[in-house]
Amino acid sequence: MDEQTAAQEQGGPPMVTVDLNADLGEGFGVWSMTDDEALLAVVSSANVACGFHAGDASTMRRVAEAAVRRNVRIGAHVSYRDLAGFGRRAMDVDATTVRDEVLYQLGALYAASVAAGGQVSFVKPHGALYHAAGSQELIAEAVVDAVRSFDTSLEIVGMPDSVLVNVAQAAGSVTRVEGFADRKYHRTGRLVSRSEGGIHQASEIIVAQALALATGQPFSSVEGEPVTISVDTICLHGDSPSAVQSARLVRDSLARAGITVAATFGTRPE
Amino acid sequence: MDEQTAAQEQGGPPMVTVDLNADLGEGFGVWSMTDDEALLAVVSSANVACGFHAGDASTMRRVAEAAVRRNVRIGAHVSYRDLAGFGRRAMDVDATTVRDEVLYQLGALYAASVAAGGQVSFVKPHGALYHAAGSQELIAEAVVDAVRSFDTSLEIVGMPDSVLVNVAQAAGSVTRVEGFADRKYHRTGRLVSRSEGGIHQASEIIVAQALALATGQPFSSVEGEPVTISVDTICLHGDSPSAVQSARLVRDSLARAGITVAATFGTRPE
Amino acid sequence: MDEQTAAQEQGGPPMVTVDLNADLGEGFGVWSMTDDEALLAVVSSANVACGFHAGDASTMRRVAEAAVRRNVRIGAHVSYRDLAGFGRRAMDVDATTVRDEVLYQLGALYAASVAAGGQVSFVKPHGALYHAAGSQELIAEAVVDAVRSFDTSLEIVGMPDSVLVNVAQAAGSVTRVEGFADRKYHRTGRLVSRSEGGIHQASEIIVAQALALATGQPFSSVEGEPVTISVDTICLHGDSPSAVQSARLVRDSLARAGITVAATFGTRPE
Amino acid sequence: MDEQTAAQEQGGPPMVTVDLNADLGEGFGVWSMTDDEALLAVVSSANVACGFHAGDASTMRRVAEAAVRRNVRIGAHVSYRDLAGFGRRAMDVDATTVRDEVLYQLGALYAASVAAGGQVSFVKPHGALYHAAGSQELIAEAVVDAVRSFDTSLEIVGMPDSVLVNVAQAAGSVTRVEGFADRKYHRTGRLVSRSEGGIHQASEIIVAQALALATGQPFSSVEGEPVTISVDTICLHGDSPSAVQSARLVRDSLARAGITVAATFGTRPE
Repeated sequence: MDEQTAAQEQGGPPMVTVDLNADLGEGFGVWSMTDDEALLAVVSSANVACGFHAGDASTMRRVAEAAVRRNVRIGAHVSYRDLAGFGRRAMDVDATTVRDEVLYQLGALYAASVAAGGQVSFVKPHGALYHAAGSQELIAEAVVDAVRSFDTSLEIVGMPDSVLVNVAQAAGSVTRVEGFADRKYHRTGRLVSRSEGGIHQASEIIVAQALALATGQPFSSVEGEPVTISVDTICLHGDSPSAVQSARLVRDSLARAGITVAATFGTRPE
Repeated sequence: MDEQTAAQEQGGPPMVTVDLNADLGEGFGVWSMTDDEALLAVVSSANVACGFHAGDASTMRRVAEAAVRRNVRIGAHVSYRDLAGFGRRAMDVDATTVRDEVLYQLGALYAASVAAGGQVSFVKPHGALYHAAGSQELIAEAVVDAVRSFDTSLEIVGMPDSVLVNVAQAAGSVTRVEGFADRKYHRTGRLVSRSEGGIHQASEIIVAQALALATGQPFSSVEGEPVTISVDTICLHGDSPSAVQSARLVRDSLARAGITVAATFGTRPE
Repeated sequence: MDEQTAAQEQGGPPMVTVDLNADLGEGFGVWSMTDDEALLAVVSSANVACGFHAGDASTMRRVAEAAVRRNVRIGAHVSYRDLAGFGRRAMDVDATTVRDEVLYQLGALYAASVAAGGQVSFVKPHGALYHAAGSQELIAEAVVDAVRSFDTSLEIVGMPDSVLVNVAQAAGSVTRVEGFADRKYHRTGRLVSRSEGGIHQASEIIVAQALALATGQPFSSVEGEPVTISVDTICLHGDSPSAVQSARLVRDSLARAGITVAATFGTRPE
Repeated sequence: MDEQTAAQEQGGPPMVTVDLNADLGEGFGVWSMTDDEALLAVVSSANVACGFHAGDASTMRRVAEAAVRRNVRIGAHVSYRDLAGFGRRAMDVDATTVRDEVLYQLGALYAASVAAGGQVSFVKPHGALYHAAGSQELIAEAVVDAVRSFDTSLEIVGMPDSVLVNVAQAAGSVTRVEGFADRKYHRTGRLVSRSEGGIHQASEIIVAQALALATGQPFSSVEGEPVTISVDTICLHGDSPSAVQSARLVRDSLARAGITVAATFGTRPE
């Protein structure tokens, strides 16, 4: 019996649990970007770069070992092959190549996770591939096909109502939908793009939006009207100087609100 | 009961079995090198390039699928990260990086193999890493450590009496030692280097040397004196125009001599 | 006085001159694609890969030296940074990056050409960048800006009526428009895409189309109606097995028709 | 008449001039390392990464533009092709490849410099290539050959009495020898290796050593005995957090000692 069930049986209010995820291991060779250790103390799921937009073999292994040590779930943050563009540039990659490159990255992280005494629990596309898989059937199918050809029990993470999540569910995969604490939303539930200033800077707003996302409460869209986004996991960005501090604030605020940060939904069947 | 045991029980001469291996999947993107399909019809073990000296995700998957179809064992042909130099250039890579990069490549090929309905059976370093692991303790340990941290049942392939094979055996791994049908040997059992003309061109000599290697008979060293090399597997090179033809000749000659091409020694415990 | 002027002064028919160009140096490391020496014996302009879709420093230098030896003009075949995709994949690269990467490639080939005793005479985008620069104003401007910031006398090669050629002309650059002997055309003058079978296979048709392109005569479009394309240079493809043979046929046929293969229009002012 | 000559004619003490150089543009894509703008305010010569160990086309152009704006000389910081290892790993690259890759990088930076309204003034190998060219005749010749095949007036920078400097002088090139303000020296004039703690941490020592190098005075070797190193240029490292501050301290101290930071020796003949 898990904590949540126990709380409910005892007649108390249902425990709220939310997963926090962040992009980790986004360095390459001598270069680093995120403060991986600090973020691993905050999140319950780590999206680990697999060498195509960032990440090298040693960084992947170090992050996998630290994640296992802290009991943080490991996910493959798979990308187009574009180190120079950090995987952020849309590319017209055919579906077969996408499928095989996702599989390649997943396997590479799997080995690092096994060596670290852990496993890979989920796959989340990165950057331009995240957007392509979220909107294009063929790319979504390629990602889902790659994941399932390796391990049908791996979860697939995407935006609510995205093509990726729909395709993954139809294929029989466990899916997780995510929201962003620091991104502005349209009332339709779509993200405001980065180029249109779609990033919240103020910590209070980021914290408040995280609480709303965690509890399924409405928050303010960029048009002013309230928007409600139901999510399983909240993505915290780690690549800005204030990122770690902001991530800690979110976690502390969730704790004070009685919300448990964990990935209980993600327990893989043994 | 396998064929060999059966033959022995029937009082016939003991069946001789030898493994043939070749380097496959040595293309990248639009470029190809080896005729993978033709070589897979000849060998019993495929050393598959894993993306660091050659090989891309789609090539790896295609080769893995074809190997499974033909019941050819799949091995990870791991290399230094040196696409421009085809992994042939000695590099002063620290042992931790070697370990993590071997693990990365092994995992990537493992995923392709699983998706193809197969598995990885062995690891054989390529090019400059083959030589470094064959002669330097720290590099050999890094390779063996990487392999065993992923799967202790994976075989490790190297030269007879090489540091790699010795380190792998001491660690408890199954090892396979290999000989080269088309390379000239010194009477000491060492290879004559390529730059000193260490390659046999004539098919008859390649075939004769393969037969000698398969049966543990002596053959002529470059000094003229006989040399005997005991091997588990014979490496056939696939990157020259006449390679496929030469490989077929070797296989046919082994068959006519009653030698079975198979990797029976390599059956992994279930 | 050049040959053409001489012919005209003697009252003969005006000499027809056409440039032949081909993509060269499209190998990488151990891999090769085109038979560079054979093609250099046929063409008058060499589009040399500069390392982003193909080509490495030594290949570039070898091709530059051979081009100088054969008096073939050297052009920079600049591409998106996409070795794995051979520069054929559309990428959403921002204009500043395009500009700086074109400049980088141009400079690298310039150095190889100078060391070979030659110079760079023109720039022709490759693959997906060719299409982007041919249709998108911002990308065309980035290419032209890069070229002109280095040397305003360099020619820019593109499709007739393409955005690239129009932008280059408006900026004051010498432009050359090219046709394809082995590609099918729509009656509108647009190319039939490769995925729709837009490649001629029969040598007679390729030769006939080359003659038509060289002389400004109509030839048959894919719709059956005649199409006339006025070009300065004819592109011969070198990456198929029969490419060299086909290229020689074209050259010989032009010679028999009294057409001179040369890049006289492209003489740079001293 | 320059300042130094003027001072001497006026009977004052001879002006001391020293060049300060630093490695710049050592980022790649989204990653950065050095604070290029801050260092350009301190040094008189910029060693610009050319894409092989670090540096991308846009970074190179930005650094070239900033260097031209601040009247800082531009040098090509050429490297082995090893982005993952930051060019610090010894590699067994054949001399022809070294030559052609140096030429490639030099040309790429030349184009960025021309577009920025400047030029390349010198070439300084980076990392493992610096050490190889400093000690191996064939590699030194390859570097010098590459530089001279492009422009015989380019200066070549290396350690005093290094093979590179000797080969360059014998070939007729202008050479500059450099010292390191933050590296410990043996009494023989050789550097103490980084792995043996060969880096000074204390600012006072770095500043004092810079003054000694600039004026040809002895300073303390790691053995305790004085060592005197005559140099044309002092290298300041920019890749540690305190690097910019330390660089400013050195410059200010030189100024207070009446030493001019400039590269007057490096004026290229017009």
